[in-house]
Amino acid sequence: MNAIVIREPGGPEVLELQDRPTPEPASGEVRVRVLRSGLNRADLSQRRGRYPAPPDWPQDIPGLEFSGVINELGAGVHHWRPGDRVMGIVGGGGYAEFLTTHASTLVPVPDGLDDDGAGAVPEVFMTAYDALFRQLGLSAGETVLIHAVGSGVGTAAVQLGARAGARTVGTARTPGKLDRARELGLEVAIPGDDHWPAAVREATGGRGVDVILDLVGAAYLAGNLEAMAPGARQVVVGVPSGSRSEVDLRVLMGKRASIRGTVLRARPLAEKALLADEFARRVLPGFEDGSLKPVVDRVFPAAEVAAAQAYMESNENFGKILLAWG
Amino acid sequence: MNAIVIREPGGPEVLELQDRPTPEPASGEVRVRVLRSGLNRADLSQRRGRYPAPPDWPQDIPGLEFSGVINELGAGVHHWRPGDRVMGIVGGGGYAEFLTTHASTLVPVPDGLDDDGAGAVPEVFMTAYDALFRQLGLSAGETVLIHAVGSGVGTAAVQLGARAGARTVGTARTPGKLDRARELGLEVAIPGDDHWPAAVREATGGRGVDVILDLVGAAYLAGNLEAMAPGARQVVVGVPSGSRSEVDLRVLMGKRASIRGTVLRARPLAEKALLADEFARRVLPGFEDGSLKPVVDRVFPAAEVAAAQAYMESNENFGKILLAWG
Repeated sequence: MNAIVIREPGGPEVLELQDRPTPEPASGEVRVRVLRSGLNRADLSQRRGRYPAPPDWPQDIPGLEFSGVINELGAGVHHWRPGDRVMGIVGGGGYAEFLTTHASTLVPVPDGLDDDGAGAVPEVFMTAYDALFRQLGLSAGETVLIHAVGSGVGTAAVQLGARAGARTVGTARTPGKLDRARELGLEVAIPGDDHWPAAVREATGGRGVDVILDLVGAAYLAGNLEAMAPGARQVVVGVPSGSRSEVDLRVLMGKRASIRGTVLRARPLAEKALLADEFARRVLPGFEDGSLKPVVDRVFPAAEVAAAQAYMESNENFGKILLAWG
Repeated sequence: MNAIVIREPGGPEVLELQDRPTPEPASGEVRVRVLRSGLNRADLSQRRGRYPAPPDWPQDIPGLEFSGVINELGAGVHHWRPGDRVMGIVGGGGYAEFLTTHASTLVPVPDGLDDDGAGAVPEVFMTAYDALFRQLGLSAGETVLIHAVGSGVGTAAVQLGARAGARTVGTARTPGKLDRARELGLEVAIPGDDHWPAAVREATGGRGVDVILDLVGAAYLAGNLEAMAPGARQVVVGVPSGSRSEVDLRVLMGKRASIRGTVLRARPLAEKALLADEFARRVLPGFEDGSLKPVVDRVFPAAEVAAAQAYMESNENFGKILLAWG
């Protein structure tokens, strides 16, 4: 099979299309013929040698998500059939024509989604769903602040928050991204300049926000503390601006606020299976009734992966960047 | 009545015994004749002008807790009678012969506790109970790390953790305090020197702890991140070492860990009432069956408040320092 391999740590030029053995599904696993591989910012860190894959996953083939078709069943897999359209997240190996993964972590592709749409769902919608609802318990009537609202996870979080009856406040550094996020349901759009914490407080009548989904990291930590309402909960999902920053514990105490970190990739299989099951029951119906829409920015042929990652690094995308196979 | 008043911001010498009007209970309140006033580190900050009382509480009479006897009922109070022995936390005004407080926030004094014992319960046991169980959900089989284990909250947390079936690990900078904490049920005693994070990891087979009750603040934050097990939850209850410190968000992400702050003083009345009710039902029985013991270090006559606060600043106490009235 064809697979994208990281030849050595470096820039986009170290990515190479190579011929690799097609993997065989072990007991409990399926083999998937991949149609779309989604790009994630973590792939850039992995390419630079800073975010190695967990054990038991391909070490030199990046890629954390896929959509495709089941191609072969391993022993003991009864709930799926070859030909079923599926999508999911993996610990690595997503940038390939075929991959094997545990059947319990698969999510069916809803009828209304085409291959591009399905490719744009797994990582961003599962990450946003897990962070906002499973980690933080966001519920109707609360106000949620979403940073980097034009990113894949940001565009998913805006839609999931609105669908849950929460008031959404979002930041982005590019005005055009804020306009497009408004079309997805963003209620309050705030430019990501130095004044965003004050603007968030003003937009919430001085009270601040109940929930913060942080996709920025160190550069926004002090501002997040300032933007928190009493009892606020923040979850950190990505730290592209860096991970070390000063925190004022007294502010956390006074506001009785919390900050937690989360990452999907390193979780045990059983937790990933629980998430997939819950996601299928609670989120997929939104793609059928039209309340949720995958946001595809651009689809590159898989062989053009270097250009695709360079485009991601330029930070111009709004929504997902995908690789197409076959 | 006699009351301790903060004449101006400063050292222990600014505390003065003055004659003040005896307060009248408003509707829903009671007047309590105070027998013991408990000292807290927050009182020292307030004396220095750095921790003002919330609105609706005496601004210049410090004191966050008391034990005593109900002296008069305000309108609409039916569940208590004059002469009932009670204890509780207040937003201020605890260093006085009489205080008024809302009846719903009172806790009855169990039969087995004398006046000194009752005086040593409210702030430290309610703070530790709220932090460990209501904020963090500590449960049987988990490992909890308690810093400043010889402090009032520390000695309460060790007993509450052991009573709940948790494994307790504690730090203190004075060896004698660790020995005494062992007598209260502390399982793993670790000197609070530079090596405590490594010692905590070693004591937990390299895994780290599930729950951290932090009474130290900035100086221990990096060590706490190091000592966390996957999924760990930390609650910050006090920051005597300072409140600003660098946090590495990537560590929080990788461990899927959380840090929250909490403080009892500024909470709305309804929440304090809920806590008092839950505390009475779930914790007070422990003082009757002998599984919980108030830890009284020393009782000063109220007129010697300056000496009492100076003694607290010396950090030599193990358990509570109290003022006795009348």
